[in-house]
Amino acid sequence: MNTFGRLFRVSVFGESHGIGVGVLVDGCPPGIIVDVSDFEADLSRRKSGAKGTTPRIEEDKPELISGIYNGYTTGSPIIILFKNTNTRSSDYNFADIPRPGHADFVANEKYRGFNDPRGGGHFSGRLTLGLVAAGVLAKKILKNSNIKAILAEAGGNSDINKTIDEALKNGDSIGGLIECRINGLSVGLGEPFFDSVESLISHAVFAIPGIKGIEFGSGFQSAGMKGTQHNDRFKDETGKTLTNHAGGINGGITNGNELFFRVAVKPTASISKPQETYNFASTKQTTLTIKGRHDACIALRVPVVVEAVTAMVLADLMMIGRSVKAD
Amino acid sequence: MNTFGRLFRVSVFGESHGIGVGVLVDGCPPGIIVDVSDFEADLSRRKSGAKGTTPRIEEDKPELISGIYNGYTTGSPIIILFKNTNTRSSDYNFADIPRPGHADFVANEKYRGFNDPRGGGHFSGRLTLGLVAAGVLAKKILKNSNIKAILAEAGGNSDINKTIDEALKNGDSIGGLIECRINGLSVGLGEPFFDSVESLISHAVFAIPGIKGIEFGSGFQSAGMKGTQHNDRFKDETGKTLTNHAGGINGGITNGNELFFRVAVKPTASISKPQETYNFASTKQTTLTIKGRHDACIALRVPVVVEAVTAMVLADLMMIGRSVKAD
Amino acid sequence: MNTFGRLFRVSVFGESHGIGVGVLVDGCPPGIIVDVSDFEADLSRRKSGAKGTTPRIEEDKPELISGIYNGYTTGSPIIILFKNTNTRSSDYNFADIPRPGHADFVANEKYRGFNDPRGGGHFSGRLTLGLVAAGVLAKKILKNSNIKAILAEAGGNSDINKTIDEALKNGDSIGGLIECRINGLSVGLGEPFFDSVESLISHAVFAIPGIKGIEFGSGFQSAGMKGTQHNDRFKDETGKTLTNHAGGINGGITNGNELFFRVAVKPTASISKPQETYNFASTKQTTLTIKGRHDACIALRVPVVVEAVTAMVLADLMMIGRSVKAD
Amino acid sequence: MNTFGRLFRVSVFGESHGIGVGVLVDGCPPGIIVDVSDFEADLSRRKSGAKGTTPRIEEDKPELISGIYNGYTTGSPIIILFKNTNTRSSDYNFADIPRPGHADFVANEKYRGFNDPRGGGHFSGRLTLGLVAAGVLAKKILKNSNIKAILAEAGGNSDINKTIDEALKNGDSIGGLIECRINGLSVGLGEPFFDSVESLISHAVFAIPGIKGIEFGSGFQSAGMKGTQHNDRFKDETGKTLTNHAGGINGGITNGNELFFRVAVKPTASISKPQETYNFASTKQTTLTIKGRHDACIALRVPVVVEAVTAMVLADLMMIGRSVKAD
Repeated sequence: MNTFGRLFRVSVFGESHGIGVGVLVDGCPPGIIVDVSDFEADLSRRKSGAKGTTPRIEEDKPELISGIYNGYTTGSPIIILFKNTNTRSSDYNFADIPRPGHADFVANEKYRGFNDPRGGGHFSGRLTLGLVAAGVLAKKILKNSNIKAILAEAGGNSDINKTIDEALKNGDSIGGLIECRINGLSVGLGEPFFDSVESLISHAVFAIPGIKGIEFGSGFQSAGMKGTQHNDRFKDETGKTLTNHAGGINGGITNGNELFFRVAVKPTASISKPQETYNFASTKQTTLTIKGRHDACIALRVPVVVEAVTAMVLADLMMIGRSVKAD
Repeated sequence: MNTFGRLFRVSVFGESHGIGVGVLVDGCPPGIIVDVSDFEADLSRRKSGAKGTTPRIEEDKPELISGIYNGYTTGSPIIILFKNTNTRSSDYNFADIPRPGHADFVANEKYRGFNDPRGGGHFSGRLTLGLVAAGVLAKKILKNSNIKAILAEAGGNSDINKTIDEALKNGDSIGGLIECRINGLSVGLGEPFFDSVESLISHAVFAIPGIKGIEFGSGFQSAGMKGTQHNDRFKDETGKTLTNHAGGINGGITNGNELFFRVAVKPTASISKPQETYNFASTKQTTLTIKGRHDACIALRVPVVVEAVTAMVLADLMMIGRSVKAD
Repeated sequence: MNTFGRLFRVSVFGESHGIGVGVLVDGCPPGIIVDVSDFEADLSRRKSGAKGTTPRIEEDKPELISGIYNGYTTGSPIIILFKNTNTRSSDYNFADIPRPGHADFVANEKYRGFNDPRGGGHFSGRLTLGLVAAGVLAKKILKNSNIKAILAEAGGNSDINKTIDEALKNGDSIGGLIECRINGLSVGLGEPFFDSVESLISHAVFAIPGIKGIEFGSGFQSAGMKGTQHNDRFKDETGKTLTNHAGGINGGITNGNELFFRVAVKPTASISKPQETYNFASTKQTTLTIKGRHDACIALRVPVVVEAVTAMVLADLMMIGRSVKAD
Repeated sequence: MNTFGRLFRVSVFGESHGIGVGVLVDGCPPGIIVDVSDFEADLSRRKSGAKGTTPRIEEDKPELISGIYNGYTTGSPIIILFKNTNTRSSDYNFADIPRPGHADFVANEKYRGFNDPRGGGHFSGRLTLGLVAAGVLAKKILKNSNIKAILAEAGGNSDINKTIDEALKNGDSIGGLIECRINGLSVGLGEPFFDSVESLISHAVFAIPGIKGIEFGSGFQSAGMKGTQHNDRFKDETGKTLTNHAGGINGGITNGNELFFRVAVKPTASISKPQETYNFASTKQTTLTIKGRHDACIALRVPVVVEAVTAMVLADLMMIGRSVKAD
């Protein structure tokens, strides 16, 4: 199911080397000001071209196909399409020699060979364009909140620049650690159990290709802590606490403190260095050299995508929250 | 929404000190052998009574209210109810002095004071009884797979016994680290993006009270790795790889290797030691001593719950997988 | 899927001759006053015992298992259970000689013989108890609206009493025509296309056993009308119209006029008269005489169920409507 | 929610006078042969241009944006877009003088004036293009079944031609009665209660603009029948019955007989004749003459749309049915 959300619902579609990629946003309230230029800032943060990112440069121009009229959302479904322009028709044969760390093998098995293999097809990171676009709309709904994700470390190092230079020099790639902080949320978003804020945010964050871990508040450190250390002491009647080991969530519900989580991004699977792997056609080990344009550190482009999916979840929860209010 | 799953759908209900807690399982295929005794093994792993767990001992007897006939699932909705028997009618007033680390404050705000506060009400860990029961059914559907979760560390220490003794002595509590391994899964479960295996498992795992982090395969270590290290090399035509940094998942889809993830459990919020906190009625700082029966290390009881929710997700994905097979 | 609704979600469960039947209501707002006695009026309208209804009389006492505390809904899932008390352990063998007009044959095929056949099992009309109970809650949410369904005709006759007498005398059964009117709804409930008010109400109404048709406003008469006759002329700025051929709905959305629809109920399938049918075991035609207690006119008991499912739909739409309102 | 279906999920989008209209189909199995020409037959049945239909003629060329590769479905989400080409930029002001029988008034209220009013915007019958396209895919999944809908009556007359001539001459419009028959279905599709075949088909059929009633089998006639007449007698071990008052469904589940239902379509709301109505700006009664191109009998174009949504429902149920089969 390529759809997420209960009231603010987002569906992604498209392929890397097909006509385009995009997003359907259903349930967006009417009356929100939207201009094509509103997408620029976030799309450019996701853009390639900078050091450590792929030199495949696309214009990434969002076409607002439906649901927007006279500069406002209408309340009807919104389709935003990004046409593919800079695709290369090289000869891919990932079915025989699937790239290690990629979805080539599983896609071929799952879809019985019918999947579009070009550039990863529907599995491409290019699909995150639609997520970013949906995030721009979601952020407008969350106008009183501030969502900010940054790349805190790359390749295990907070001197990110240096680590990327090294990876580029070696034809290798590196992973990264992203931190996301949301301020200005009201108390009471989320539900106990299956719709906990952690459940929904992790669900959405793991929809981003390359994510391998998520932790809220003290996260994995909590596992080694004592209750006396971990419990956050209330400081006043707003529910604000002196510490924030909980990461802004108790019992699955926002508590009014900063919502904080960290996300681990694995190193880009496509690397220039030759790799030993298996040829499924000849049933022999072989050496694979992946041509084409890669990101040495895809994590550089992920923070804005993390913000986007987080905004989607929180906009949905805010809308659900309104629904149970008495008139 | 207290419901999870697309075809195999699980809803939890109930309160800690009300009539009971339980689970509704909708979409369970007919013809699965079910006896009350089938639940014993998993329920006893979740049980309290052992060192480090609360001395509140309940019989935890599942009543099969519907959906089972003549020892088989019928294909109709299954209700399993666990009546509460050992409840104490002490005087709770968590609305004024919410317990640090608990959901008392957020529940009171969210439900405008109408929530059942007794023993945490609907937020109680007792609700996981229903998850374990649903997991027993899900495991029967996944008969060719093996799911095994263990507590690998408690309080940051793999000598778990010793760490618990210490916490008990100090009236404190400790967190824990759980490892879960699933073997025997077929290739192709899950979807790219919103229904990735990581998305669904993390969604379900964070529904368990007290979880603060999850990582798949190399997880947070991946963030510091290079592509040359992280990419798993294929070894033969089954898709098996020499290493398993991916944790058995590529592009959100199972790849036939062991599915592996780790989960961080925070220390139990209820501790015997007096805590400084805030009195929302008097609007003054105060000292709170929580009476009653607590788990020094709730993480001891969580592995079987992690197994249960994982089984729920995988049973659902297996059923979805069948649906697209040609006749 | 035995669940319906997006925010106000209702799931039914149970079997006619098992432990009981009931309903899970998830998403009910907190703070609604609920007492066991609130269910009496609607449950008694559904009750058997009157002329034309089955003499199987059950107490139909709702047990409020969860989600209600101190006389108010808590915001947590509500389970309402009706235990079966008056069940007879006669020897059913509907698998071999399925009753004409009943679900015996399809149930046996669909569930491969694992379904509970006693008294129709999960297919029993007794399951509508849960619907009525959920409707009582939904009506409380719709406090400014009035929903009223009546039996307008039975056996094609508006002298209902006489027609029932005749059917009883002949060991036969009769169908009926129900009219439902809802007043006090605000303009704007529902959505164009898949969540039209007609789509959702018809979905819910056809969930009631025995319903064979539904029409809104002029309904089937519209098919023979002209536009000049059918178009409802606006009379003032409230959107009220002089006629109501639309039945209170335009473009799938409530228009502020009376919401009006009619529902056809087929004659009870169980009749005392011997019926010619097929023995699937002997593969021969046979004569079947159905023993037990039947409704000569089940339609007598259906109006309150129609009200209940209508209330469920409208409460859900009202809650969804609130969610898109600006703060 | 503009989405329908559990595994085979269809979402419609677009506006009558915007960039285009279209459909997102998520969950379509991989490996289904699809060519643009496959859509021609059904799209031409929905087309305008014939007597009694609007002279606005569009090419209705489906653009396959995603999910199809090398002539086969890939298993990824499918977007089909129909660009609008023949739109006229006349001056609409339906907000002040909403057209009787149309959604102008409710749309303006619901979306607070932000909806696209041009040509009905998102409420336009043009949106059914997407439904027809999705139906073409669904019919391919249902390859062993035959779905056939026809217009049986128009304006209450089975001499349809003559009735349309009359309506055209008078600047009026007429409604129609559609019959739909599906053969070749297996026994066991659908569920008791909320996912009954009647619930799902009626839900989908009422998503088509202009539908005011639906009845299955003997439908509204059942309300006047006796059990001895209505019960269908089994004739052999396939479950086939001598009569088909049930319309091929018992207990919400297909019984292997012909699935049969009838649908009432109201007369087109747009008529050339002047109409008395209300001016919401001047708050006075006024006379409205609707310019532009109308269908005298929209029902002529609806049968293929009824087939399409029926196919969507049945394809979904067939896929769900597979999911519970043992391996």
